[in-house]
Amino acid sequence: MDQLFKGLDDIYNEIVDIRRYLHQHPELSFEEVNTANYIAAYHEKLGHKVRKNVGGNGVLAYLEGDKPGPTVAVRADFDALPIHEQTDVPFKSVNEGVMHACGHDGHTATLLGLAKVLNGMKSEIEGTVVFLHQHAEELPPGGAIAMIEDGCLNGVDVIFGTHLQAQMPLGEIGYRSGPLQAAPDRFDITIQGKGGHGAAPHETKDSIVIGGQLIGNLQQIVSRKVDPLESAVVSVCAFEAKNPYNVIADTATLTGTVRTFKEEIRNFIEKEIERVVKGTCIVSDATYDYTYTRGYPTTVNHKEETEFVAKLAHCVPGVESVNETPPIMGGEDFSYYLEKVKGTFFFTGAKSPDWKQAYPHHHPKFDIDERSLLIAAKTLGVATLQYMKNNAKTLSSQQV
Amino acid sequence: MDQLFKGLDDIYNEIVDIRRYLHQHPELSFEEVNTANYIAAYHEKLGHKVRKNVGGNGVLAYLEGDKPGPTVAVRADFDALPIHEQTDVPFKSVNEGVMHACGHDGHTATLLGLAKVLNGMKSEIEGTVVFLHQHAEELPPGGAIAMIEDGCLNGVDVIFGTHLQAQMPLGEIGYRSGPLQAAPDRFDITIQGKGGHGAAPHETKDSIVIGGQLIGNLQQIVSRKVDPLESAVVSVCAFEAKNPYNVIADTATLTGTVRTFKEEIRNFIEKEIERVVKGTCIVSDATYDYTYTRGYPTTVNHKEETEFVAKLAHCVPGVESVNETPPIMGGEDFSYYLEKVKGTFFFTGAKSPDWKQAYPHHHPKFDIDERSLLIAAKTLGVATLQYMKNNAKTLSSQQV
Amino acid sequence: MDQLFKGLDDIYNEIVDIRRYLHQHPELSFEEVNTANYIAAYHEKLGHKVRKNVGGNGVLAYLEGDKPGPTVAVRADFDALPIHEQTDVPFKSVNEGVMHACGHDGHTATLLGLAKVLNGMKSEIEGTVVFLHQHAEELPPGGAIAMIEDGCLNGVDVIFGTHLQAQMPLGEIGYRSGPLQAAPDRFDITIQGKGGHGAAPHETKDSIVIGGQLIGNLQQIVSRKVDPLESAVVSVCAFEAKNPYNVIADTATLTGTVRTFKEEIRNFIEKEIERVVKGTCIVSDATYDYTYTRGYPTTVNHKEETEFVAKLAHCVPGVESVNETPPIMGGEDFSYYLEKVKGTFFFTGAKSPDWKQAYPHHHPKFDIDERSLLIAAKTLGVATLQYMKNNAKTLSSQQV
Amino acid sequence: MDQLFKGLDDIYNEIVDIRRYLHQHPELSFEEVNTANYIAAYHEKLGHKVRKNVGGNGVLAYLEGDKPGPTVAVRADFDALPIHEQTDVPFKSVNEGVMHACGHDGHTATLLGLAKVLNGMKSEIEGTVVFLHQHAEELPPGGAIAMIEDGCLNGVDVIFGTHLQAQMPLGEIGYRSGPLQAAPDRFDITIQGKGGHGAAPHETKDSIVIGGQLIGNLQQIVSRKVDPLESAVVSVCAFEAKNPYNVIADTATLTGTVRTFKEEIRNFIEKEIERVVKGTCIVSDATYDYTYTRGYPTTVNHKEETEFVAKLAHCVPGVESVNETPPIMGGEDFSYYLEKVKGTFFFTGAKSPDWKQAYPHHHPKFDIDERSLLIAAKTLGVATLQYMKNNAKTLSSQQV
Repeated sequence: MDQLFKGLDDIYNEIVDIRRYLHQHPELSFEEVNTANYIAAYHEKLGHKVRKNVGGNGVLAYLEGDKPGPTVAVRADFDALPIHEQTDVPFKSVNEGVMHACGHDGHTATLLGLAKVLNGMKSEIEGTVVFLHQHAEELPPGGAIAMIEDGCLNGVDVIFGTHLQAQMPLGEIGYRSGPLQAAPDRFDITIQGKGGHGAAPHETKDSIVIGGQLIGNLQQIVSRKVDPLESAVVSVCAFEAKNPYNVIADTATLTGTVRTFKEEIRNFIEKEIERVVKGTCIVSDATYDYTYTRGYPTTVNHKEETEFVAKLAHCVPGVESVNETPPIMGGEDFSYYLEKVKGTFFFTGAKSPDWKQAYPHHHPKFDIDERSLLIAAKTLGVATLQYMKNNAKTLSSQQV
Repeated sequence: MDQLFKGLDDIYNEIVDIRRYLHQHPELSFEEVNTANYIAAYHEKLGHKVRKNVGGNGVLAYLEGDKPGPTVAVRADFDALPIHEQTDVPFKSVNEGVMHACGHDGHTATLLGLAKVLNGMKSEIEGTVVFLHQHAEELPPGGAIAMIEDGCLNGVDVIFGTHLQAQMPLGEIGYRSGPLQAAPDRFDITIQGKGGHGAAPHETKDSIVIGGQLIGNLQQIVSRKVDPLESAVVSVCAFEAKNPYNVIADTATLTGTVRTFKEEIRNFIEKEIERVVKGTCIVSDATYDYTYTRGYPTTVNHKEETEFVAKLAHCVPGVESVNETPPIMGGEDFSYYLEKVKGTFFFTGAKSPDWKQAYPHHHPKFDIDERSLLIAAKTLGVATLQYMKNNAKTLSSQQV
Repeated sequence: MDQLFKGLDDIYNEIVDIRRYLHQHPELSFEEVNTANYIAAYHEKLGHKVRKNVGGNGVLAYLEGDKPGPTVAVRADFDALPIHEQTDVPFKSVNEGVMHACGHDGHTATLLGLAKVLNGMKSEIEGTVVFLHQHAEELPPGGAIAMIEDGCLNGVDVIFGTHLQAQMPLGEIGYRSGPLQAAPDRFDITIQGKGGHGAAPHETKDSIVIGGQLIGNLQQIVSRKVDPLESAVVSVCAFEAKNPYNVIADTATLTGTVRTFKEEIRNFIEKEIERVVKGTCIVSDATYDYTYTRGYPTTVNHKEETEFVAKLAHCVPGVESVNETPPIMGGEDFSYYLEKVKGTFFFTGAKSPDWKQAYPHHHPKFDIDERSLLIAAKTLGVATLQYMKNNAKTLSSQQV
Repeated sequence: MDQLFKGLDDIYNEIVDIRRYLHQHPELSFEEVNTANYIAAYHEKLGHKVRKNVGGNGVLAYLEGDKPGPTVAVRADFDALPIHEQTDVPFKSVNEGVMHACGHDGHTATLLGLAKVLNGMKSEIEGTVVFLHQHAEELPPGGAIAMIEDGCLNGVDVIFGTHLQAQMPLGEIGYRSGPLQAAPDRFDITIQGKGGHGAAPHETKDSIVIGGQLIGNLQQIVSRKVDPLESAVVSVCAFEAKNPYNVIADTATLTGTVRTFKEEIRNFIEKEIERVVKGTCIVSDATYDYTYTRGYPTTVNHKEETEFVAKLAHCVPGVESVNETPPIMGGEDFSYYLEKVKGTFFFTGAKSPDWKQAYPHHHPKFDIDERSLLIAAKTLGVATLQYMKNNAKTLSSQQV
């Protein structure tokens, strides 16, 4: 692996430049045309076979090794967020109101740098590397599902991916078998009461009173209905009933999110919310609309591949600790890939030792320690090469 | 009326003695056998036609005047309460745990005194006086309804009654046309959830959580559903779910009272409680039992008869003020009589000017200023005689 | 009074024309410049002494009778509402988005017509008539308080006013001694919790959950804390917490109205709301802002003057019934006048017998039967003249 | 280990007989005098040094091996429950209302059988075995804490224990590093409102309404305040406010349980409940009493010892699967030992393959497959012997 590590060290500056260029030119989810072109051009220059417009703005690049072996996909997402950047970096976003505030610029730079180095190691490569550049991770339904439908996993035996974590110290790798990131769903409830004069409540069905009861009643789903050994969140995040001070609300709308790791709990909560809404509306003879919109599935890492990467990570230069990470309640559409093929998604620490506190992801002052890109590239690279070595003879293209 | 007033003044001491005797020998509702015998004997001694065991322990006595005219009923109740008397009066209850703590001893003494005096005025009396001694006012279903079924109102044209009021100053008469006392109903709710271990709420349907929501939801009946210009009370007075500290409640029971003045609001609340219970149970997939038990109806005074008595009261010696009284939320089964015949029920002040504060009715230290008995007897007497005078020629026995 | 009645009958068409002109040219509260000029010009033409810009756009006109006597004020308000008229009348509003949807056009036409007729009866008039044309009744702080400060009640012995009621049948007059219209107050509550990610509620103080509890807790003020024999309303009419579906609310705002008839209950509720808000916020360690803004006081009619008008109303041609009206929970700034001088405010039925159902006040299709203007003018006129007759010798200018 | 396994197989019938004898003669927690004597006699007959009345009814027996080595404690509890047995077994409880409904009879039989067999293997034993027979596991404060204070862990290097699990299939061993069983705490809340007549809520502070709000507000501790990745339960299990149907509650009492695995969450919830109670009482100007009583600590298994036992369990005859078990919310005072010395507590499956469904622990029909006793004895035995072998040379008596 020394060649891999050294190769990446040699082009570290280029990786940083790529990241900064992308940071300066962010594009919103589903609108990442220039970024996609940039990625495609980079791979074409390397001589890789490239597929553009995969499931939208997705880009696939293929590197065939000189020896036969399995097909390993490595994924990076490349969309940015509708956030007005407030950092002072010289490569600050030039696209007003759009910002790479989640590290996808770094993911992409990591993957391109890795592509360049692996390209120079063709003779060592036993199989095919698929560079899976995914658009639109931030905005459901996300890019993964469309890219899969468009064939991005065809022939792929295993997939690896990582997320830079600004809250995790540089030098740390976080892994977890099984559920890693929650399924982030959304619900919308409209209570239809009956408006009227604030002085005559008896002639109305007070949607705000109903909504108040509903907020309270929804708490019992987590506090009483879900096994305390399981994790679940039901948050009402918006409540709107805008009226003059003396007009009782005709309708009220509640919007919120549900987070779960297990499909049966997810299904249960979807139904349970409706039961609570229904009963609460009956109390006041009101009616309702209820919509439950599923976000990404839970990101469930495969055990064998996760332990495989965790073990390898110990040997990556710059990695100081490899820890089992607790799951997180936020969602990630890498989950779709893991439903189709084996693989794992891990976290790469990106919090600089010089920072007392790191700004959270999606914050207008979000930043990363760029040395994390090197660690991410090395870890993905070593996983790719070692996986090929281990599976060179036994594996043909099979899907899980 | 001077003969009436003088006659009553002359036997004031006897009236007081009767009241004290009754006070000393109180009997619980539906168990007032000795009191009924005492009353009957008194009337029999006066030569009145007496009917005993009317609808239970009720007693009727009839005084025929020498002249023809209407039939006027005057009513007094005579049951006592399951209260342990804590006064220091020399005529304190000798029946352990039973007490005349609501003034019914005074009502009866008033009526017997009035009977004696009117008996001596036969030649002036233009019609028939019915002395209606009612048992069991304190305990639903009460004595009134059974006495009516047993014919106590047969031939009666009008009925008058009064309640001594320990909180109203001596010398005051309180009257009110229309609703005077609320209908005091009762509800019983049992929530059937599903019990289980306190550590495993997800395997239960937590009856206490459901009950808590129900208590809250019931508040909206008065706060949102009843016209704010109307009066209504919904009180949950008992909540029981007795369990070890670590066993989630299988069931919870709620018991309470509803008070209303208008039948349509009473009907509405009876139904509305069930709606609230039903919806609240649906929220947690629980079931319920709901029973609504009607107490006495609202006591609704007839306008003409009320104004008639109010006007006369001004002329009664000892009466210093005659005021329209606000309605009260407590119930009274005089209401049944007023559903059948015309009449009115009024309040006679019994709070001594020497008292800073009077103990409320049903209190173990309850007491009355006995001079109120004289005022009550005079007012009932003058109403009886004047009504006969006014209606002597026109009225035959007709029921409303 | 025949001269008065005949005089008004003779100019009925003119009264209607005035009303229609005003209806077509409505002006918003505090912006009623043209209407004020129109009113002033009408009185000036009659030769009345006129004061303009009284407390804003208010207009006062004085008619001195030939004989000495008391000073009687009759009041009409003349502002319109920010409502887009949806009727089909030929004299529909020409001012886009502004409408006389509460009958103030009719009040003003009534008063001007009455002014014209009384002007022709100077020799009969024993005292002074003050035509009090008030601006801005619809919008607190209202015009009354400023007009009073500017002297509109100087020398006034009594004040009369009426409101056309579209829900009350034509031919009916509604009167009530004591509280007639509620005090309409406003409250504003801001809950300051702590926002955060919808997936991490434990790092937040969820303002929506707090707000939900608050709505529920506020119900108990009316259901538990106010004497059930009294009237009160506490309505939360607006609840706003606008957030993305996955962001827990940092703040929530609640706005609503309180309606009461008695000052001590009003004061109690103002304090009680704060107690409820305070305790509810402590439950979640949140903070709050609370503002209670008093609207008009309760409109409390004087007993003697109310009964005086009620008795007279029976004799007014066109009046078919005179009823004690229940109080209403809506507010009216006539209340300020009644705090300063004796008088009464009554309702004049304006619902056409041809209508099955009348549109409520403030509805874009609101309308009145114009014959109600004649009844209103006659009733106000007869009250004015008779009051003068009754008080000609005894009363000099005294204020209550 | 073959000698151990064979020895136990040989006395299987005796083990069963012991268990049945104990089952038939159950004794309540802290009252287990006869059982303690029975245990002591058994060990004395084997020639073991015995200490009786250790921290109450606890019994310690010591087996010195012929070779030097570490001191290994194996623990079994022996108290029964206040449950009326409803099984049909021939060895049904003869003590009315007392039942071994949690398997402690089996635990004790297991330990005695193991003692007998190890006694016959003295020459193989490298160190000392402490047979720790604990009373009163079912009733806080439990027997463990007192036995520790009385020296039961003196010189002990490691402790092993197991619980028969009627819901876990026979042949299964469940292990878990870290938190295995929750800390089971108790809270008691008394709300002091102000009672009064059900018809006059405004003169009261309604303790039932306050209690209802409190139940609702307590839900948010788990639903909003505890990290969704952590486990916690807050259950209100009893609510008592017993009153006549028309008397508003003066007080209400709430009793319940809290379950947590982490001390900081336990501390947090203890404080948070008080915050919720305090704020909720302020809403209605009521006062409260609040008591939080800590039950056993969380049972936290030591990692090394747990993995050690899990590995060995694979080799035990009769064990078909060894699984990481999820933690359980129920408590266990084995926790106190693990705070003092290294060790692990594991679950031994006792659900017969012939049963479709097993009755839960503490159920009047609870039963176990007695073959589980053999598996438990073998697993504890092999752990004891292997631990001695591994640590014979290096370990002297040291406490953690």
